[in-house]
Amino acid sequence: QSNVTLYGRVDLGYQFNNKVNAAGDSLSELKNGGIAPSIWGLRGTEDLGSGLSAFFNLESHFYGDTGQLEGAGRLFRRQANLGVKGAFGSVALGRQYSPALLAHLGTDPRGFKEQFSMLYPYALNQTTAPDTLNDLGIFLANAVSYTNSFGPVNVGAAYAFGEQAGKFSAGRTASIGGSYTGPVTVSASYQQIKNVAGTGDTKQWGLGGAVPLGPVKAKILYLRTKSDAGVLAGAETNVGVWGVGVDYVWGANTSTVAYYQGKDKETSGALTDKTKTLVLSNDYALSKRTTLYAQLAYADYDAGSTARTSIIAGPVVAGEKQTVFGLGIKHDF
Amino acid sequence: QSNVTLYGRVDLGYQFNNKVNAAGDSLSELKNGGIAPSIWGLRGTEDLGSGLSAFFNLESHFYGDTGQLEGAGRLFRRQANLGVKGAFGSVALGRQYSPALLAHLGTDPRGFKEQFSMLYPYALNQTTAPDTLNDLGIFLANAVSYTNSFGPVNVGAAYAFGEQAGKFSAGRTASIGGSYTGPVTVSASYQQIKNVAGTGDTKQWGLGGAVPLGPVKAKILYLRTKSDAGVLAGAETNVGVWGVGVDYVWGANTSTVAYYQGKDKETSGALTDKTKTLVLSNDYALSKRTTLYAQLAYADYDAGSTARTSIIAGPVVAGEKQTVFGLGIKHDF
Amino acid sequence: QSNVTLYGRVDLGYQFNNKVNAAGDSLSELKNGGIAPSIWGLRGTEDLGSGLSAFFNLESHFYGDTGQLEGAGRLFRRQANLGVKGAFGSVALGRQYSPALLAHLGTDPRGFKEQFSMLYPYALNQTTAPDTLNDLGIFLANAVSYTNSFGPVNVGAAYAFGEQAGKFSAGRTASIGGSYTGPVTVSASYQQIKNVAGTGDTKQWGLGGAVPLGPVKAKILYLRTKSDAGVLAGAETNVGVWGVGVDYVWGANTSTVAYYQGKDKETSGALTDKTKTLVLSNDYALSKRTTLYAQLAYADYDAGSTARTSIIAGPVVAGEKQTVFGLGIKHDF
Repeated sequence: QSNVTLYGRVDLGYQFNNKVNAAGDSLSELKNGGIAPSIWGLRGTEDLGSGLSAFFNLESHFYGDTGQLEGAGRLFRRQANLGVKGAFGSVALGRQYSPALLAHLGTDPRGFKEQFSMLYPYALNQTTAPDTLNDLGIFLANAVSYTNSFGPVNVGAAYAFGEQAGKFSAGRTASIGGSYTGPVTVSASYQQIKNVAGTGDTKQWGLGGAVPLGPVKAKILYLRTKSDAGVLAGAETNVGVWGVGVDYVWGANTSTVAYYQGKDKETSGALTDKTKTLVLSNDYALSKRTTLYAQLAYADYDAGSTARTSIIAGPVVAGEKQTVFGLGIKHDF
Repeated sequence: QSNVTLYGRVDLGYQFNNKVNAAGDSLSELKNGGIAPSIWGLRGTEDLGSGLSAFFNLESHFYGDTGQLEGAGRLFRRQANLGVKGAFGSVALGRQYSPALLAHLGTDPRGFKEQFSMLYPYALNQTTAPDTLNDLGIFLANAVSYTNSFGPVNVGAAYAFGEQAGKFSAGRTASIGGSYTGPVTVSASYQQIKNVAGTGDTKQWGLGGAVPLGPVKAKILYLRTKSDAGVLAGAETNVGVWGVGVDYVWGANTSTVAYYQGKDKETSGALTDKTKTLVLSNDYALSKRTTLYAQLAYADYDAGSTARTSIIAGPVVAGEKQTVFGLGIKHDF
Repeated sequence: QSNVTLYGRVDLGYQFNNKVNAAGDSLSELKNGGIAPSIWGLRGTEDLGSGLSAFFNLESHFYGDTGQLEGAGRLFRRQANLGVKGAFGSVALGRQYSPALLAHLGTDPRGFKEQFSMLYPYALNQTTAPDTLNDLGIFLANAVSYTNSFGPVNVGAAYAFGEQAGKFSAGRTASIGGSYTGPVTVSASYQQIKNVAGTGDTKQWGLGGAVPLGPVKAKILYLRTKSDAGVLAGAETNVGVWGVGVDYVWGANTSTVAYYQGKDKETSGALTDKTKTLVLSNDYALSKRTTLYAQLAYADYDAGSTARTSIIAGPVVAGEKQTVFGLGIKHDF
C-alpha cells in the first residue's frame, strides 16, 4: 500500500462582470476558482509509535481554465511542509498557511471563498515582496509552526525566517491565530511582517464571531492592517474591513447573504479608498464531492477605491458601481 | 480507496535526420515522442446518482529526454477540465482538446502520431497567439464543450472564450467535429479561431475516411486552413494538405505506408510552399503497454516550403530532400 | 490496480552559518535538504514475459522550504527515463543519473549527502552549460545507459547525445562507473564531457574504498577533475579532492566523522584554491521512513578558495574560517 494520498480540486464556471475598466467594458469569461482554488497535492502520515506521527503535505496551485501553474515556478505554492504531531500538538516546518488566516475560516461571512470574500483585503494589504518569503500573508515560506487544540480552543503560531544575512529579523513573519468553537465561534489573529530591508512592517489583527440561530448562522469579521510608508507601494496605509453575513441551510443548499465594507483611514483626503459590496450566493451539493454554485456581487467603489478595500478578485473600477455574476461547479478529489 | 487515477506515458528513441540546415548538416539525437508525447496526468470520476457522473482530467506534457515541462509554466498544458456526463452526453469546462482534431484521429493515415502525421500542418496553420487561449488549435483554454454518441456517430462541439474586455467574440474559438464509425469510418470537422484584436480569423475544415479491407485498413484525410492576412505572420494563407495510407496488421505488428502532400495556394508565385512526404513504419507491441517502433520519412521540400505544409516535427530545409529515421520505445502507465 | 508508484521525500531543518560574506555576517535559515534533496516522483514496471520487464522513472526536485521547483521549468530534473531490463542487464533512455556518480555512493565518507559531501566538488567542476544536456555532471539528458551486476560487481555506462547539428560528439557526455561490494567496497569512475562548441572538455576520474571494522565503517574517496581553459569560466582547472571518514552505528544512531580536502593544482600562484573541512554528524532513525539529524561542519578556506574545492552548499568566504550547523528531519514516502 502507498504512503501517499493524491488529492485535489477543480473549480470552474462562467463569470460575467459588467464593468472591468473605465471605458465601461464588460467581460464574459470561463473563470477558475469561483468558490475555491484549483489544486492538486500529495499528503501522508507515518505512525512513529509512542502516540507520535510524522506528516507531510505538498500542495500545488493551478488555473483550471488554462492549465497554467500559479506563480513563477512555485510548483508547491500552497504547501510544502513536514512535521511531527502527538499529544503535545503539532510542529511543522516549511511552506505553510498563516495561522492568522486559518483562525478566521469559520467567521469570515463567506469562509474566505476565492471569489467574493475577505481573502483579498487580507492578502493585498500585506507586504508583498518577495513572495518567496511571504506570499500575500497567506503562504509563509521558511516557516516553523506550532498548533494545538485545548477542548474547543484551537491555537496556531508560526515564525517564518527572513533569511537575510546579518539581519535576523528582517523579512520575517510572526503570525498567531486562535479560535473558540462552541455553539458560538470566536476568532482572533495577529500577524506582523517585516520588510526585507528591515525598515518597516505590516501589522494586522482580526476579530470575528459566528452565532448559530436554528438553520441560520450569522457571522461577523473585522480585520485591520497597517503598513508603514514604503512597505506597500506609496504612503502609509491603515485599512479596516468588516463583513457581516448569514448562512441559511435548506436541504442540500446553503444560501448566503453578506455585506462587506473596507476603508483606508490614511486616504481621507480628496479621494477616499472605500468600497462597499453586497454578495448573494447559493451552493447546491450535488454529491459529497461536487457542488454547483451561483453567486452575485454588487460593489460600490469610491473615487479612490483600490483592491485593498475590495472583496472582488478582478479589476476595481474606482468611482463606479460593478456587478459580478458567477455560475460554476466545484469538484474535490 | 483513492478518487484519482495517476496515468501517463514515456516515449523515447533514437532519431537521425540527414539534413537539418542549409549547410547540409545531419543530426543524431535522443528523441522524445516518436509516436506520442510523454505525459503524466490525473483523472477521476464520481457517481452523482440518477445516471450522472462528474469527471475531471489534468494532463501534463513533458520532454522525456530532458525532463523539461513543455510550455512556459503550463503545468497542465494538455488538459485541465471538469465536467458532468449522463444520458444527455457530456459537458466539460476548462482546457481541453479541440473536437475538430479529435474527429480525425481514426482517419489521419498515421493517427496524428507526434512524429510524421497531419498533426503539424493542423497545428501550425492556426492562429498562434496567445497560446493561453488557443494552443495550436489543439488545446483550447477557457472552453465549454459538449460531446455525445448516437450509435456509431460521435459528435463534439466546443466554444472557447476569448476573454477580451468589451469584445465578446475576439480571441474565441468555435470548434466542431464528428465521426461515423461503422465498418467504414468517416470524419468531418470545422474550426474557426478569431484573433485577439478581432480583426481576422483562421478557418479550417477537414474530411476523412477509413475503409477496412481484410487485415488492411486504408485511410484518407484532407484538411484545409485559411488565415486572413496578418493572422499568421505575413500574408493570407490558404493551405490544403491531404494524406493517404494503409495499415497492415500481422501478429503483434502494425506496418504503415503513408503519403502526404501539402500546398499553400496563396504562394503560387516565385516560391511555392509545397511539401511531399512518404512515410514507412512498423510498430511492434511488446506487451499491452509497451511498443517498439521504427519509422522512416522521406520529404521533398519545394523552394518555398515551410512547416505549414510539412508533416515532420523538425526543421524544414526548403528546396532540399530530407530523410528522417527513428527507432524507439513507448510505454504507457 | 495502478501501474504507478508515487514516492518522494521532504527534508527540512534549521541551519546556522556563522559567516556568509566578507563582512562576517551570520545567517539563520530554514534549510531544505540537510541530508537529501526534497523530491517527488512516479515510477513503475511492467512484466514483458521471457524474464524481461519495462520500467520508467520520473523524478522532480523542489525546495521544501519555499515550494519552488528546482531549475527553470525542468519538471523532472532528476529523472525522466524509460528502459528494459532482463538477464542481460538494464538499458535505459532519457534523463538519468551519471553512472560515474552512482559508483561512489558507498565510498564517499558522507554518502553524497546534500549538505557537506563530495557532491559539490563533483558537480561544480563539470562543464556547466547548457544544463539541459549535462546538469552538473549528475543528471545526464538525452542519455542511453547500460547497467549490470556480476556477483558483487556493479557496472554502469552511459552516453549522452550532444545533439549539435553536424558535430556528433560536441556537447556529449561519456560516463562509466563500477563498484565491488564484498565485505570491502571499492569504487571507480571515469567521465568526460565535451563542451557544446566541441573545443574542450572536462575529464574526471574517481577511486574510493570502504572497509568494515566491527560496528565501524571507514571510507575514503579521491576525485580528480580537469577542465580545459574556457570550459569552466576562466583558465584551465585541475582539482583534486579527497575525503576520509568513519561511520559508527549504535542502536538507531549513525555517527560520522569525516574530513575533506580539495585543491586546484592550477592555482598554485599567489592565491591558492584550497579548502579543508571537518564534519561531525549524527542521524537518528525515528522510524523506517523518518530520520532526525544534527550536523556540524568547520571549513578553513584559503585566500583563493572557491566552490570547486568546498563540500559545503553555501557561500565560500575565501581566506576565512566558517562553522555551519544544522538540525533537521527527513521523511521518505
